[in-house]
Amino acid sequence: MDFPVQDLENTVGQKPNEHCAVVGFYGTDSAFDWIYTSLRTLQHRGQESSGIAIFDGSKINVVKVMGLVNEGFKNLVENGSIYSKLNGNIGVGHNRYSTAGSKDLSGAGPVTVSSMIGELALSHNGEIVNQGELREELKKKGVTFQTQLDTEVLLMVLSREIGEKGLKNGFKNAISLLKGSYSCALVINDKLYAFRDPLGIRPLIFGQVGNHYVVASESSVLDVLGGKIIRDVEPGEVIEFSETGFKVILNSPSLRTAHCMFEYVYFSRPDSVIDGVEVYNTRILMGRQLAKEAPVAADVVVPVPDSGRTQAMGYAMELGIEYSEGLFKNRYSERTFIMPSQSLRSNAVKLKLNPIKSVVAGKKVVLIDDSIVRGTTMRYIVSILRNAGASEIHVRIGSPMIVAPCYLGVDMKTRDQFIAINKSVSEINLEIGSNSLAYLSLDGLKESIGLGNRNLCLGCLTGEYPVKIQGEKYIKQTALESY
Amino acid sequence: MDFPVQDLENTVGQKPNEHCAVVGFYGTDSAFDWIYTSLRTLQHRGQESSGIAIFDGSKINVVKVMGLVNEGFKNLVENGSIYSKLNGNIGVGHNRYSTAGSKDLSGAGPVTVSSMIGELALSHNGEIVNQGELREELKKKGVTFQTQLDTEVLLMVLSREIGEKGLKNGFKNAISLLKGSYSCALVINDKLYAFRDPLGIRPLIFGQVGNHYVVASESSVLDVLGGKIIRDVEPGEVIEFSETGFKVILNSPSLRTAHCMFEYVYFSRPDSVIDGVEVYNTRILMGRQLAKEAPVAADVVVPVPDSGRTQAMGYAMELGIEYSEGLFKNRYSERTFIMPSQSLRSNAVKLKLNPIKSVVAGKKVVLIDDSIVRGTTMRYIVSILRNAGASEIHVRIGSPMIVAPCYLGVDMKTRDQFIAINKSVSEINLEIGSNSLAYLSLDGLKESIGLGNRNLCLGCLTGEYPVKIQGEKYIKQTALESY
Amino acid sequence: MDFPVQDLENTVGQKPNEHCAVVGFYGTDSAFDWIYTSLRTLQHRGQESSGIAIFDGSKINVVKVMGLVNEGFKNLVENGSIYSKLNGNIGVGHNRYSTAGSKDLSGAGPVTVSSMIGELALSHNGEIVNQGELREELKKKGVTFQTQLDTEVLLMVLSREIGEKGLKNGFKNAISLLKGSYSCALVINDKLYAFRDPLGIRPLIFGQVGNHYVVASESSVLDVLGGKIIRDVEPGEVIEFSETGFKVILNSPSLRTAHCMFEYVYFSRPDSVIDGVEVYNTRILMGRQLAKEAPVAADVVVPVPDSGRTQAMGYAMELGIEYSEGLFKNRYSERTFIMPSQSLRSNAVKLKLNPIKSVVAGKKVVLIDDSIVRGTTMRYIVSILRNAGASEIHVRIGSPMIVAPCYLGVDMKTRDQFIAINKSVSEINLEIGSNSLAYLSLDGLKESIGLGNRNLCLGCLTGEYPVKIQGEKYIKQTALESY
Amino acid sequence: MDFPVQDLENTVGQKPNEHCAVVGFYGTDSAFDWIYTSLRTLQHRGQESSGIAIFDGSKINVVKVMGLVNEGFKNLVENGSIYSKLNGNIGVGHNRYSTAGSKDLSGAGPVTVSSMIGELALSHNGEIVNQGELREELKKKGVTFQTQLDTEVLLMVLSREIGEKGLKNGFKNAISLLKGSYSCALVINDKLYAFRDPLGIRPLIFGQVGNHYVVASESSVLDVLGGKIIRDVEPGEVIEFSETGFKVILNSPSLRTAHCMFEYVYFSRPDSVIDGVEVYNTRILMGRQLAKEAPVAADVVVPVPDSGRTQAMGYAMELGIEYSEGLFKNRYSERTFIMPSQSLRSNAVKLKLNPIKSVVAGKKVVLIDDSIVRGTTMRYIVSILRNAGASEIHVRIGSPMIVAPCYLGVDMKTRDQFIAINKSVSEINLEIGSNSLAYLSLDGLKESIGLGNRNLCLGCLTGEYPVKIQGEKYIKQTALESY
Repeated sequence: MDFPVQDLENTVGQKPNEHCAVVGFYGTDSAFDWIYTSLRTLQHRGQESSGIAIFDGSKINVVKVMGLVNEGFKNLVENGSIYSKLNGNIGVGHNRYSTAGSKDLSGAGPVTVSSMIGELALSHNGEIVNQGELREELKKKGVTFQTQLDTEVLLMVLSREIGEKGLKNGFKNAISLLKGSYSCALVINDKLYAFRDPLGIRPLIFGQVGNHYVVASESSVLDVLGGKIIRDVEPGEVIEFSETGFKVILNSPSLRTAHCMFEYVYFSRPDSVIDGVEVYNTRILMGRQLAKEAPVAADVVVPVPDSGRTQAMGYAMELGIEYSEGLFKNRYSERTFIMPSQSLRSNAVKLKLNPIKSVVAGKKVVLIDDSIVRGTTMRYIVSILRNAGASEIHVRIGSPMIVAPCYLGVDMKTRDQFIAINKSVSEINLEIGSNSLAYLSLDGLKESIGLGNRNLCLGCLTGEYPVKIQGEKYIKQTALESY
Repeated sequence: MDFPVQDLENTVGQKPNEHCAVVGFYGTDSAFDWIYTSLRTLQHRGQESSGIAIFDGSKINVVKVMGLVNEGFKNLVENGSIYSKLNGNIGVGHNRYSTAGSKDLSGAGPVTVSSMIGELALSHNGEIVNQGELREELKKKGVTFQTQLDTEVLLMVLSREIGEKGLKNGFKNAISLLKGSYSCALVINDKLYAFRDPLGIRPLIFGQVGNHYVVASESSVLDVLGGKIIRDVEPGEVIEFSETGFKVILNSPSLRTAHCMFEYVYFSRPDSVIDGVEVYNTRILMGRQLAKEAPVAADVVVPVPDSGRTQAMGYAMELGIEYSEGLFKNRYSERTFIMPSQSLRSNAVKLKLNPIKSVVAGKKVVLIDDSIVRGTTMRYIVSILRNAGASEIHVRIGSPMIVAPCYLGVDMKTRDQFIAINKSVSEINLEIGSNSLAYLSLDGLKESIGLGNRNLCLGCLTGEYPVKIQGEKYIKQTALESY
Repeated sequence: MDFPVQDLENTVGQKPNEHCAVVGFYGTDSAFDWIYTSLRTLQHRGQESSGIAIFDGSKINVVKVMGLVNEGFKNLVENGSIYSKLNGNIGVGHNRYSTAGSKDLSGAGPVTVSSMIGELALSHNGEIVNQGELREELKKKGVTFQTQLDTEVLLMVLSREIGEKGLKNGFKNAISLLKGSYSCALVINDKLYAFRDPLGIRPLIFGQVGNHYVVASESSVLDVLGGKIIRDVEPGEVIEFSETGFKVILNSPSLRTAHCMFEYVYFSRPDSVIDGVEVYNTRILMGRQLAKEAPVAADVVVPVPDSGRTQAMGYAMELGIEYSEGLFKNRYSERTFIMPSQSLRSNAVKLKLNPIKSVVAGKKVVLIDDSIVRGTTMRYIVSILRNAGASEIHVRIGSPMIVAPCYLGVDMKTRDQFIAINKSVSEINLEIGSNSLAYLSLDGLKESIGLGNRNLCLGCLTGEYPVKIQGEKYIKQTALESY
Repeated sequence: MDFPVQDLENTVGQKPNEHCAVVGFYGTDSAFDWIYTSLRTLQHRGQESSGIAIFDGSKINVVKVMGLVNEGFKNLVENGSIYSKLNGNIGVGHNRYSTAGSKDLSGAGPVTVSSMIGELALSHNGEIVNQGELREELKKKGVTFQTQLDTEVLLMVLSREIGEKGLKNGFKNAISLLKGSYSCALVINDKLYAFRDPLGIRPLIFGQVGNHYVVASESSVLDVLGGKIIRDVEPGEVIEFSETGFKVILNSPSLRTAHCMFEYVYFSRPDSVIDGVEVYNTRILMGRQLAKEAPVAADVVVPVPDSGRTQAMGYAMELGIEYSEGLFKNRYSERTFIMPSQSLRSNAVKLKLNPIKSVVAGKKVVLIDDSIVRGTTMRYIVSILRNAGASEIHVRIGSPMIVAPCYLGVDMKTRDQFIAINKSVSEINLEIGSNSLAYLSLDGLKESIGLGNRNLCLGCLTGEYPVKIQGEKYIKQTALESY
């Protein structure tokens, strides 16, 4: 996937969106260590900034840092001061996704407030599509805002509704007001809550480690902590964690779900299980399905590292072709900065990927990635493989064409950035310079994920969204027979 | 003065209070440069953190930094990015006072909110004594708080009252609700406001530089910017700065004023003029008055640098005794940190001050400081002068004994820290080891400041406060003929 | 490979050794950009610190930084000051390998001196085994040393010998004095030199980009810079780069070579070609050979990421078994620090690797890594695969047992750290908990690398060294018929 | 004094020279704490960088840091790692003076080498005028240099001479070879040496604290450490500190001394005693002498803070005129950086000094500083006092005109920067805009310092130097009857 695109293409200025990591902890131990490790486990969901908020018995303290979790908290952990700053057994943590344009803590989570119902800290993954309307309505009612974040709107709606109608009805009302995606961990005084929008767009799971409860965006957190999964937080569900264990406060059944297909294709760690589906296995199946749909009698299957690796293995297995790593990825090229001189800028591109000639020279190559957003990287890769002597290059993509923006938590907002807009597959093939090009079909994708009678959000692939969005096509909330 | 006491006595854990710097700018130029220079001019009023908030035409952007103004903003100014982050002609700035216990941006000003009346940024010097009650009342009405700051309470009260009752009546109501000290610069959308509590406890002045208006805690800002003073913001006054110049929105006459006497004794720059009184000259008069009240036929008058210097010159002038700098102060000892080894810790004390033997050896010395809070430093100074061979040491203090806490903006909260609590002057003399000790009298202090028919706040000297404070004695708001 | 072992096992205090990156540039362009990009390309050869030294026409300037190349130079590049500090067209660069114990610039290269022959800057990869004797002899002759580095000894020997005997004879004498491994780029005033010990232990290659010459540890640098390889610097060869192009100054033929086998097994980038041998292809052959020598009728071949991946693919290809990535490696776990609490420490281990259950559960797994040094990591991996449900785990290692220290440039000094010391394969199998264990044979390794009539250094595998080392067995310098 | 001139006038690019701080410690305690505190005490002698080198029983370890001593060592002290890095009881420390042009550790002291006579660490204050010749001669003998520092040349000469001729004769030879100024503390293995050039140009003193010996540039170090002075290191003397106490190794009597007069006028702390002369008292005498030579019937004597304060007090005392601080100096304006916008740049000047109107308005002012180098600052001060209403401004300078460069340790190298070059006093008076101007006479300066039968270095005042300098006039080494 050519997403995130920053370091190859220096995109700037996009307002960061929400594909973040959420963690919640309710236990009998100092919460910091547990949340810290969970956030490190989920570092792939956000590298811009991190924050941890912990209830100390009377109020909530929060520490936010820039950069990777272990770098940002390094000094505070090493000199031990973090344990006096963040003292307590109940808390939430957040990693924020990095885009090139933003470089300060103003967007960092969690968001904390002190309100009529007490002390609150909210960690949120998702995107509230009606945050503008809600913000204006709340302002008219006297609510004030200190950030630009939809998470703050979410928290203000919640604290007002709970304050006015009590916990259960407050959550109920809030859920009916909030449109969009939200998978959240929330501290209210001495209790922890986990809740998720009725469509279950972003993942959220919880489990147990000893006598502690952990809520997290992905199941791999529970593996790393040495705990065990209890289950996913259900779409529309609100779960409370307290001294007496956990209990379901609210269940808001919806006619359908709309799990983001991109979690399976790219976002989630391969060792996670999202809404009952093993991610690694799903990616293998996508590769196999792609092989069935668009086989090539090639010499070698080469992945774009690291994003295309699993789909490539599936593709190679299915056709019995040799799988080989024909592109070397420089691990240290990830974090870069804008170089003043042109020679350094162009080198920055080459630094990242270099072909291994013996794998591709004179060979008919199938080149596999999980997806294409803008196409710039893929065109570059095709050219360097060509220069390294590949005789034919057949590009195969483990998911369908992206033709529409995401409004529900993925940083793909601008239609005209997509290579697939108003282009046929053969036009794209021409543009990236490959001998042939094929995408996985929509049905193939759904088949590979195989969510049973649950539904996927396919908005970016179809232009039809499970949530009403101004100017976009809306899919009515009927339960489709299969998906 | 032995205040701030941090680096000599390593006090920790006190919640920082408000004796900060306030700046406001309304002009036709980029506001950043002007506010930045103003905050550097007022650096003595706060070194912990600084912040600048500027209205960009549609919203308010804010940047907060740790440490000295020039250090905190260094990178942002050098790489020019501050001008894109803080773009606009209207803004406020804030320096926060440093105490040893706090080391993050959570207490930094200004506070900004987006509310029903628009975008607001508030810079505040002072202390709201009823902030706890106001906070709870507002929470019950659905207001949420994101910090522990009284400034946030002030801003919430204001934005609600203005939202409900309009600008003038909103300010009026807010002023009647808010108890305590507040000298403020406030941006509401494209206008700047300056206002001050009805007692005028903390200073606030405004002036003009070219066609720009500048509001600041002290008049020296206008000197440094090359502008001219218009006048003090009057106690209880609200002034609006807009395209059409400045106008008084509200005038809340009070039966008396209560200007903090400590501004004259210690806080303000000697080159400032506070409520019409020249600070340097006032300190000279305090020294002269002290000489009249408690003369010593000494060989030399030695100040505690830098705080006692001006009073010492006045004392020496009055009696015609030689003024000489018998204590060298290491300029680089200011910012220190807690050393792990005992030998380094004790050295840290000696590092700061060292006697000049030729000045004091065999001499009858008058040692002068502006005030004594805890006495630890003074005892140390007396001992090193004694070791350096002073034959007699007569301590004279340019202000009366501090016997009560300040609740209105000075970081002296704990009664039992004061050396003067329950002790006579002769007992204190014994404790610090001097040959004699005398304080300026209350009348002498008032005489030296000479505010005409205006009143001072003398709460820490008398235990009687101009504002109602739980458990303390209240002075009714009558206009004392003189004071 | 469980090397480097730092982040899993927190080894400390080992004196860092030399498996570093060397770069030299002679061109008509500003040298900085080119050396900077080359060092980033070779970042895998050293992450502790980096340095770049450039001749400015009269003297050599050097800048050394901690950490990754792009992080260390970030500020200097962004504010442009690096171009005034390092101005010139001829220079050398160095990356230093990171071990946990050292955290300052005292070991950073290149080493620079001003001497009777002019200005020198030396970048060195390797290890001088007689540095102690040389150092003492030189001291007796009046030479002084400012570092602990063998590179400084190398430079002192060279500058003295060249000063006394001229360039050619000086190099000749120096080469006869220096025992050990050294692949170097050296600036002497306005010329660049590349030279390599007579055994060619560490790699060194050179090429051309436009009209610039580039010397580097690995050929991938020339790919990334868009240039082309000229050839390896031959063992014992000294090449001079000047206005008139390059010429061989000295050729010191040796009866044999002793290329470090670890460059092929682990160190070098897979896209590099070292002494005529393609690294990726060699690793595939090692895997295939291992499959021939120690086949398992398994369900799946799983690599230890990233080190075992290529050998694992070869193994799987050879036997036609499914290759699958059963272990997820957290990319962000690399750089860690010592955590104060025990719970965080144990989590640090788990953070790095997590099994993918669907790949291994109920399966007979062949687990492949390139080598084992201490065995701790391998034991941990076997245990987590077992917990994830693998029915059998057969460990296969793509190189022979490490039984002796390296004195020639690899950070394996302490015999008793090696799991293979005084243990049979079956004892090691027992210790790591696998169902079976096999290593690639010595002959199999040589066969896979296939250097023709050139020899390898196999000291760590055989305990017999191509260089005389106190207390170790020495292989006489005869040209072995094959290798 | 308008020196250092950096922050007012942004001079750049001058090669930093040596007016640094030197510390040596020989004791039974961990040396770090003692040297650290000593360097903080001498922070006024250098703020660019600091270094501490300590012998650990077998080798010398050194840590160098940028910036103020307490800032540079902060992290290492707080996390305790400094005590493992710098472990031992014998060591030296160094502060380096800051000029605007240099911003890295390449110039930081001490310099350390390992040589035939063992492990050495040298801390040096002064300037070797024949360093170029010595460097070239040594290079021809095979010596190599790794820095541009004259301190390295000094150390190389010493280590060679001692290695060849033994300790005593080695020092003797070295002293005959080295021309210029050097006050040094030197570790050779387990002993500490203090030595000083035969003219005693820069200060050096030693004393005892408990059973530890401390060598330092100024006596105030011993006050701060709680120790007592033994005596100055005599010009030309070499003192060894070892288990058996201290002993004089060598005494190189010279026909004259040449103590830098600037130490008394400006450099040294007022609480120091330099070569038997109390600095504060000397400055008072300079002021009194100036009053006798150039009296003004003025209303008030105003110092340029902080440099002119002591001389101003002496001047005021002598004439019985009121001394008053008519200029406020912003303590926080010291460290600044180059601002991008013109408005900020001009503000930077105003930020530093602001007149106190009540002191000067309508008054006949005597404005006193210790010296004038470039005059820019003085012209600015005269203008702001004029603007503040001073009716007359009479500038009086506490030392004679500076008309020639310093080659012996003061950063005044460029003749054409001096305002006094080729100008009469009345021309300078015109240039700075004062009503009258007078300097202290040469005889008046000598009288005030009153060194008995010892001589001063007056090179910058007379253009005649006590050391042979290419192109400058040399004073033959005769003992002048008085001075």
